[in-house]
Amino acid sequence: MTKRPTLEALEDRGDFIRRHIGPDERDIAVMLAALDVASLDELIAQTIPDDILSDTPLNLPPPRSERVVDDALRRMFARNELHTSLIGMGYHDTITPNVIKRNVLENPGWYTAYTPYQAEISQGRLEALLNFQQMVIDLTGLPVANASLLDEATAAAEAMTMAHRISKVKSPRFIVDADTHPQTLAVVRTRAEPLGIEVVVCDPWAGVEGDYFGVLASYPGSSGRLRDPEPVIAAARAAGALSAIAADPLALVLLKEPGAMGADIVLGSAQRFGVPMGYGGPHAAFFACRDEHKRQMPGRIIGVSTDALGKPALRMALQTREQHIRREKANSNICTAQVLLAVIAAFYAVYHGPKGLRTIADRVHRMATIFALGLRELGFDVVHDCFFDTVQVRVPGLARRISARARAAGFNLHVIDADHLSATFDETSRRSELKNLLAVFATRADALLDLAQLDARVIDCIPSALQRDSAILSHPVFNRYHSETEMMRYLRRLATRDIALDRAMIPLGSCTMKLNSTTEMTPVTYRLFAALHPFVPLEQAQGYQQLFEELEERLCEITGFAAMSFQPNAGSQGEYAGLLVIRKYHRTRGDLHRNVCLIPASAHGTNPASAVLAGMEVVVVACDALGNIDAADLKAKAEQHADRLAALMMTYPSTHGVFEEGVRDICALIHAHGGQVYMDGANMNAMVGLVRPGDIGFDVCHLNLHKTFCIPHGGGGPGMGPIGVAPHLAPFLPDHPVVQGVNPVAGADGTIGTVSAAPWGSASILPIVWAYIALMGAAGLRRATQVAILNANYIAHRLAPHYPILYSGKHGRVAHECIIDLRAIKDACGITVEDVAKRLMDYGFHAPTVSFPVPGTMMIEPTESENRAEIDRFCDAMIHIRAEIAEIEAGRADREDNLLKHAPHTHELLIADQWNRPYGRREAFFPHPSIDRDKYWPPVARVDNVAGDRNLVCTCPPMSEYEAAS
Amino acid sequence: MTKRPTLEALEDRGDFIRRHIGPDERDIAVMLAALDVASLDELIAQTIPDDILSDTPLNLPPPRSERVVDDALRRMFARNELHTSLIGMGYHDTITPNVIKRNVLENPGWYTAYTPYQAEISQGRLEALLNFQQMVIDLTGLPVANASLLDEATAAAEAMTMAHRISKVKSPRFIVDADTHPQTLAVVRTRAEPLGIEVVVCDPWAGVEGDYFGVLASYPGSSGRLRDPEPVIAAARAAGALSAIAADPLALVLLKEPGAMGADIVLGSAQRFGVPMGYGGPHAAFFACRDEHKRQMPGRIIGVSTDALGKPALRMALQTREQHIRREKANSNICTAQVLLAVIAAFYAVYHGPKGLRTIADRVHRMATIFALGLRELGFDVVHDCFFDTVQVRVPGLARRISARARAAGFNLHVIDADHLSATFDETSRRSELKNLLAVFATRADALLDLAQLDARVIDCIPSALQRDSAILSHPVFNRYHSETEMMRYLRRLATRDIALDRAMIPLGSCTMKLNSTTEMTPVTYRLFAALHPFVPLEQAQGYQQLFEELEERLCEITGFAAMSFQPNAGSQGEYAGLLVIRKYHRTRGDLHRNVCLIPASAHGTNPASAVLAGMEVVVVACDALGNIDAADLKAKAEQHADRLAALMMTYPSTHGVFEEGVRDICALIHAHGGQVYMDGANMNAMVGLVRPGDIGFDVCHLNLHKTFCIPHGGGGPGMGPIGVAPHLAPFLPDHPVVQGVNPVAGADGTIGTVSAAPWGSASILPIVWAYIALMGAAGLRRATQVAILNANYIAHRLAPHYPILYSGKHGRVAHECIIDLRAIKDACGITVEDVAKRLMDYGFHAPTVSFPVPGTMMIEPTESENRAEIDRFCDAMIHIRAEIAEIEAGRADREDNLLKHAPHTHELLIADQWNRPYGRREAFFPHPSIDRDKYWPPVARVDNVAGDRNLVCTCPPMSEYEAAS
Repeated sequence: MTKRPTLEALEDRGDFIRRHIGPDERDIAVMLAALDVASLDELIAQTIPDDILSDTPLNLPPPRSERVVDDALRRMFARNELHTSLIGMGYHDTITPNVIKRNVLENPGWYTAYTPYQAEISQGRLEALLNFQQMVIDLTGLPVANASLLDEATAAAEAMTMAHRISKVKSPRFIVDADTHPQTLAVVRTRAEPLGIEVVVCDPWAGVEGDYFGVLASYPGSSGRLRDPEPVIAAARAAGALSAIAADPLALVLLKEPGAMGADIVLGSAQRFGVPMGYGGPHAAFFACRDEHKRQMPGRIIGVSTDALGKPALRMALQTREQHIRREKANSNICTAQVLLAVIAAFYAVYHGPKGLRTIADRVHRMATIFALGLRELGFDVVHDCFFDTVQVRVPGLARRISARARAAGFNLHVIDADHLSATFDETSRRSELKNLLAVFATRADALLDLAQLDARVIDCIPSALQRDSAILSHPVFNRYHSETEMMRYLRRLATRDIALDRAMIPLGSCTMKLNSTTEMTPVTYRLFAALHPFVPLEQAQGYQQLFEELEERLCEITGFAAMSFQPNAGSQGEYAGLLVIRKYHRTRGDLHRNVCLIPASAHGTNPASAVLAGMEVVVVACDALGNIDAADLKAKAEQHADRLAALMMTYPSTHGVFEEGVRDICALIHAHGGQVYMDGANMNAMVGLVRPGDIGFDVCHLNLHKTFCIPHGGGGPGMGPIGVAPHLAPFLPDHPVVQGVNPVAGADGTIGTVSAAPWGSASILPIVWAYIALMGAAGLRRATQVAILNANYIAHRLAPHYPILYSGKHGRVAHECIIDLRAIKDACGITVEDVAKRLMDYGFHAPTVSFPVPGTMMIEPTESENRAEIDRFCDAMIHIRAEIAEIEAGRADREDNLLKHAPHTHELLIADQWNRPYGRREAFFPHPSIDRDKYWPPVARVDNVAGDRNLVCTCPPMSEYEAAS
Repeated sequence: MTKRPTLEALEDRGDFIRRHIGPDERDIAVMLAALDVASLDELIAQTIPDDILSDTPLNLPPPRSERVVDDALRRMFARNELHTSLIGMGYHDTITPNVIKRNVLENPGWYTAYTPYQAEISQGRLEALLNFQQMVIDLTGLPVANASLLDEATAAAEAMTMAHRISKVKSPRFIVDADTHPQTLAVVRTRAEPLGIEVVVCDPWAGVEGDYFGVLASYPGSSGRLRDPEPVIAAARAAGALSAIAADPLALVLLKEPGAMGADIVLGSAQRFGVPMGYGGPHAAFFACRDEHKRQMPGRIIGVSTDALGKPALRMALQTREQHIRREKANSNICTAQVLLAVIAAFYAVYHGPKGLRTIADRVHRMATIFALGLRELGFDVVHDCFFDTVQVRVPGLARRISARARAAGFNLHVIDADHLSATFDETSRRSELKNLLAVFATRADALLDLAQLDARVIDCIPSALQRDSAILSHPVFNRYHSETEMMRYLRRLATRDIALDRAMIPLGSCTMKLNSTTEMTPVTYRLFAALHPFVPLEQAQGYQQLFEELEERLCEITGFAAMSFQPNAGSQGEYAGLLVIRKYHRTRGDLHRNVCLIPASAHGTNPASAVLAGMEVVVVACDALGNIDAADLKAKAEQHADRLAALMMTYPSTHGVFEEGVRDICALIHAHGGQVYMDGANMNAMVGLVRPGDIGFDVCHLNLHKTFCIPHGGGGPGMGPIGVAPHLAPFLPDHPVVQGVNPVAGADGTIGTVSAAPWGSASILPIVWAYIALMGAAGLRRATQVAILNANYIAHRLAPHYPILYSGKHGRVAHECIIDLRAIKDACGITVEDVAKRLMDYGFHAPTVSFPVPGTMMIEPTESENRAEIDRFCDAMIHIRAEIAEIEAGRADREDNLLKHAPHTHELLIADQWNRPYGRREAFFPHPSIDRDKYWPPVARVDNVAGDRNLVCTCPPMSEYEAAS
């Protein structure tokens, strides 16, 4: 008999911490030794200034096992109730085809991918996004579409600002159709106010008096009413204004396309194309415009170009419009698209094809017409004669009673006022439901209606002038994958072309590509999280309410703030919302003139763009040679603009990957001059559990939940950018026009309004964050941050002999990322960071961030999830590449005809009979033994961006083109 | 206003039929035209003999949509109840790590793969299976392990027959430890009886009188009792008998390995290593033996060899032992392993590593010891002093009362008799449960026990002689993937090496690699199907009971039989069980001498092997030149053996892929001579909805649910082989020693006994079948069969000009598969079917079935799920290869140094500086444009089987070997 560990000692509550953090004890010991420090604590002490480093453990529940967390989430979602929501207003139940759900939404090959900046290793999702654009182009009838925006409401706001930029009319007036979704109107109003735009809500069909630069009309309206937008479009054109049409994509399957009527912009939500409502998001908005305006279009456009061998290749087009380049001159501050959701919507169209979509649209419309006829037979007055899916009915004085009866029967209706209700049908509506619903209205008779009879007698209500007579989705891609087998293979083929986290480390500085664990991801597709309409009565969403409350409490504990708003559904939205909060604060104090926003030169490009959108004037603060904010310049600028100082916006630790000293002083200085301090939380992964922004003087910060808190990047979205604020700012956090109580502490001065369509942003991905925090607990989160810093310093240590490390802190340590400087290499031999980035693909790696924040450098962030073996593999590749460069520097390799300039290398070269390169095949393709058994074959060679931008093609090229080229 | 289709017309209930069946209307029209027939019905009339073709639609519910079927399954599983099952008896709750669940169990890349006969495109799962073998070798202490068997009970039966073959002792006696799981004992008894083996149940520790050829002892026993097996092993050795130890793998983590004690065989179930209980299965059994017996070991062994370039490569070893070669001389009739489940168990070990497993085992054991101490403190008598996880307690007269109280508290205990209960702990047991459980027993005091105190005071009860002192899982593979990131990438890397259905058509004749749709697969991982113990009270499994009843009814309708048993958990098990039923039938009629089984020469190799296992004498019936049963020879043999005739066993349509004429006459002939007719249902995919075996004279058939009814092949298992029988045979269908009522019509003559461990076989994969039938309905199933036949005939039509089609029916049509003859090619130029099979890999295809049923041929079965584009792609490849062969025939290419003999081609050749082949690189690697954008790169070149068999290595080679080679 032997002595064994006790049960207590055997409880493995922290198991997930070891699963999440890549390096184990042995790895950590080796790395600490390499850095010549004795412990993680010693390393942190050398990295983070004393005056901000906290050693108080966060007050969070202890770490829990994956099973316990999953059980807790199941209990949580069981508190949500699933009724049939006929609320409409831009959200519709839909069926995600299971083959897409399993192979895309639940497949790390899709959801862990990064934004496709590196086109060559992103051809799979670029093709999916091109399909999305083609679908939007077909549906809208406009020639150019982008690859998605955040939601319909922000897309409408973008349409407004785009019209404002383009229209030559000097008027500040923007006309909004009164029959627009209330959340869209609210977001447009919020966006308009700081920009000095006047939103005029009216019935544009009734004619608009006076000048205006743009108009937004709904097709069909939020009420369901269907009207011909052509007169509104024509009037706008005549007035020199731009017309934007908010449209429903499923309605467009049947309706005449607004592009053919002359509309300048068409936008809407692609949610009902297979993307779960998820209590508000994430979903993809679509946005299309006329060719002449394409360079003014917000968001990202995927375009067709060719690679170095002349083969067709895709990439993001017109990248010169990106925020990090245009800064305060950017068209928009939106960085995050909704790639994963746009991809799902596009695959939904691929899966159903034109005929399938037509059947779905016809069926939804038929349901609505039968319902309307039934209501009329029951003696009710149907308000609109023409509609697609939404039937509004007059029920004088009975709206609430009927709505309550409907709820008892399992339906959520839209209560418009005491006398009006509406019901919206969707793909999931069943005939039995239609019957039960009519019974709800049949107060006097007991369901005398025969559905089959109604069906036979119903007369369609779409005017013939509005019937679509053009084809949609005629491209082969929408017509060849209709069997599940073919669809599954298509999804697999596309995924195979890309590098995502399931294949290799993605060491993107500032982008924190950490593990998105399965346990965190699983709840996203649980029905009771996924299928809720955002406007259901709160009592049906108690699981979500618990989630929000607990998550707010925990994120406040982590950041040291007093309150948190989940409404901003991207980091850029968070910046914008946070600055609006500061603006509102000043204005409620009567400081109407405070509109200067100080921003360091090293800031993310979205910072100035967001400031401009928030109506602020950007004043740039210089950085010193160490990359830190130049204290003297800051002081000077703060003093110079003291009267008008609204805010300092800074990233901490800095975008240079360093914990600057004196940040408390900086905050104090700004406060002394009447300003507020906004912290860009992009680098929060270096702080969680070690430093609380709220404790050291910051007033607001946004959190990139898709970076620090494990929401996956989804190939370029969804993101989630909630903001935390100090107590004095809490009353100004966003509210919502439809759902009450989103900001429970809103005061008499009101809030900043609404920044996103959904009350709590992309609610359905918040369980990921909740799960991550629950699994890690305070100790795990702290350790994750420590190891993230350890990993970065270990990389800096390994690469420093080969590439200079550009910036470091007082003790020579970097934070959670490091910048290597390649400018001297370029000067010496012409090799650029881009060449190195492309060469890394031959080694099977996604490149680090290139030329941000400093041109000619690479920023490397390993995160805590990568273990030493993978980090060493990456460092080995970088060192090996450095040796390849040395050959060029030494004149032994040609300056142009070399391994780097020709990278990435594709198989076409290998199978050619002649090998005309001055280097060997093995050197080109298998430069390092670590990839011998797991080679990634880039599907295209280096993509030509210039040619593609010169001749922008954002539609699917004919299949023959692919076939001919290969 | 326009006229639109009615709602009724828009209901798309048959949508899934179009998703499942590859060719659409257009494809079908083109293919029918190519075959010069006007309709599917006309084609079928040319294919299936008039006298058996049915035009009565099956009486099944109409096809339903994926959503409706999923809802129905959710309602069904909601009728199951989930309690904490402490029943033990070989089944234990376990946690499937989520990263494995999502990326293996829910990933078509793993579950749609075929058995790894084609080693080069199976290196990923072969590595996973090698890991499984290494794990078993480490745990058991024996040097050779196979890659899994069907379940623990059949593994025990295999151990018995293996001992019988090996032992030189002439005695028919096999000793079984009385403390063996009852289902194991039952299966051993069933297996022993027809073979004339006498099973002696006793306590082998007490000494065995007389001769015996083998002994099976449990370690620990079914009762939980832990005894040192060494004396039993030593006594067996002394008696010239072999010793087999049934062991628990988790217990073996702590216990001394039986291999070190001299055991000849160790077997058990790997279920508790991460595989859900699934109400009985599927799970993988493990089996290990001494080196000197490896050639007698049942099942498949994965071995290490090298490829044509000298690189390490894996493949199935010792394939000459396979049933299709050894037929009635085979060691076993088992063809199907449980690959997917063995893979999961192996990944579970990879994920946890030696330390993690040790913690789990220690914790389970600690729970049991605390529970035992608690019981003692409460005044109960704990029966055994030494145990691992199961505590048996004496509760005189109270067993049922306490068990009822436990059930009310959410626990299922094992009731042994009126005076004894036991409780078995597992990985999922919680401390709170332990507390509640003790409270159940604490009748008099209210839970006075303090868990922490018990924990501190408990004394371990594993004798020091039985403590393991050897290391386990020290191979690097079990020590490097402990972070989720690394684990996810490892799973991805392995999957990438293989061709499964998610990549390309797998046109395996007789193996029916059709779509395994996501909607069908989803319920497998629903908790309420996955987490049930097979021996829970029936009232807790009402969802499963509904499933079985409905499925039995539907499969009976499809086959025309009266009853169905789901117990056989593989096709081979079905054959065996079906023949036992026939045997039992004869014996109950007093026909003890009827033991001749007629089997056509063309039969599957398992047929004769199963007949031998069922105690029958195989008499081979000749085939005529057309591949049909030689009617004259059949008549002669039936007459010759009339007195002893037990059965004719035939495959219909034949293994030659043809609907033979006169099958009704054949059945009548056999019946006339007193025999029964067994139909091998391997080719049922050519009959569903068109022909019902029960209607045309067959008495029994098994269904390969993993072929015809959409259960995926899982890379070589699970399978499922239920049998249907005519009314007179129903009383003899299997029953079960633990669960009553498995055969509700069993009569006084008894049944054949028990053939598998679980009452309803691999219950948790039956929802796949239920869903498939519900989605397709009668019309869909019939159409699927028609299109399967169309696809096969289209392939025959396209390939006939290039490769002779070996067999066809009266009108020149093949059934659902066709055989092409390559023997003339071999004679002409030395190119073999194997060369063509390997060359197909260069085109990205898995080969068809090679050399079965006729050596030198290929059997091609496209199934209904492949559309015309994919079939054409395959035919194009075959035709292109034919042209490559023609070059050799014409003498323009060398007989040895050519594209086929060197296939498959791996990247190593491409990157070599020299290209020494007489053909070009493009020809070798990209012979056809269809693969240009989606190249599959074989990870190894042709594997050397001979070298590997000569020097069998079935453990993981040191990592350095891989690294050095690359």
